[in-house]
Amino acid sequence: MASYTRARMIETTARLLQHRGYHGASLNDILEASGAPRGSLYFHFPGGKDQLVIEATRAAVEEATRALKQCLAEAKSPAAGVRAYAEAAAHLMRESDFTFGCPVSPVILDASGGNAELAALCRGAFEEWTGLIAAACVAAGVPKPRAATLALLAVTAIEGALLAARAYRNIKPLFTIGEELEAVLSAALPRRKR
Amino acid sequence: MASYTRARMIETTARLLQHRGYHGASLNDILEASGAPRGSLYFHFPGGKDQLVIEATRAAVEEATRALKQCLAEAKSPAAGVRAYAEAAAHLMRESDFTFGCPVSPVILDASGGNAELAALCRGAFEEWTGLIAAACVAAGVPKPRAATLALLAVTAIEGALLAARAYRNIKPLFTIGEELEAVLSAALPRRKR
Repeated sequence: MASYTRARMIETTARLLQHRGYHGASLNDILEASGAPRGSLYFHFPGGKDQLVIEATRAAVEEATRALKQCLAEAKSPAAGVRAYAEAAAHLMRESDFTFGCPVSPVILDASGGNAELAALCRGAFEEWTGLIAAACVAAGVPKPRAATLALLAVTAIEGALLAARAYRNIKPLFTIGEELEAVLSAALPRRKR
Repeated sequence: MASYTRARMIETTARLLQHRGYHGASLNDILEASGAPRGSLYFHFPGGKDQLVIEATRAAVEEATRALKQCLAEAKSPAAGVRAYAEAAAHLMRESDFTFGCPVSPVILDASGGNAELAALCRGAFEEWTGLIAAACVAAGVPKPRAATLALLAVTAIEGALLAARAYRNIKPLFTIGEELEAVLSAALPRRKR
């Protein structure tokens, strides 16, 4: 029961961070949205809001990483895998009524300057995602430096497309960017790997 | 004097929004950072924080738009103009010790859902920036639908690169993305326009 409350608080916090940012996800909001009594906050998270935010961000980053790995593993090429990831994000965006988003961008924008552990977590997420895409490109025959640039383009453009989709309340930017990234990455692959 | 205070409050709010997000830029922070007396807030901005945030976001969007127009006008091609814009953003990022950022992304992430005027302003900024780049590509001979996709790629990747630069406290992602966007856009231009 205790671990259920804990898991629910982490999930609620991750959702609120993506929807309202670090400063917009107050402890009161988190308690109210998770239906948890105030006492359970410091019982489960003795470090208070910062610990909760770090654990929620870490859990959401792990989920995004798992989804990216799966897309890359199931697709016929890294180019198709990146597109599949953008499209999966589009569906989550729509299902959540445009409250879904990147787990690290609100933390980077609002708060990473003030908390070294959070900042390292956000940096690590960017490194992991670009690393996964770059490794898939290298495995498909793209030279390492080129793979690193393509991976950065993919991650940054998907980050921006998540923002654009939220701004427009329309998932089309994620589909357009997914298709375009597939074309750009595909052109860098040896012909037999496209 | 009054208009000086007003302008300073707008500038301070724009900076705080980029650095700490909508909810992180409290009225107290804004008053403290701008050195303005509390009374001047409702004198200059009868609509309170929301009016101030809207005016600050609008002013910062206009500044970004002016800079983008200038980069596109001065460069030898839209591809080089986009790269110049990414590099100009990199310099602002470094000069501001990584507090500079896109004026709309923190508002989109934190608050656009709750305020229709702010949401329209953020949407309008994306439309204006992609419209400017697309128009420059069309003027250089790129077919309209292709120009629209390339413009969306440029805007989203620069948005993401601003996030990555903040996360890494390093402006390199903006240079890498600027160079890569120049290559992608260049490849779409008629040979004589590159």
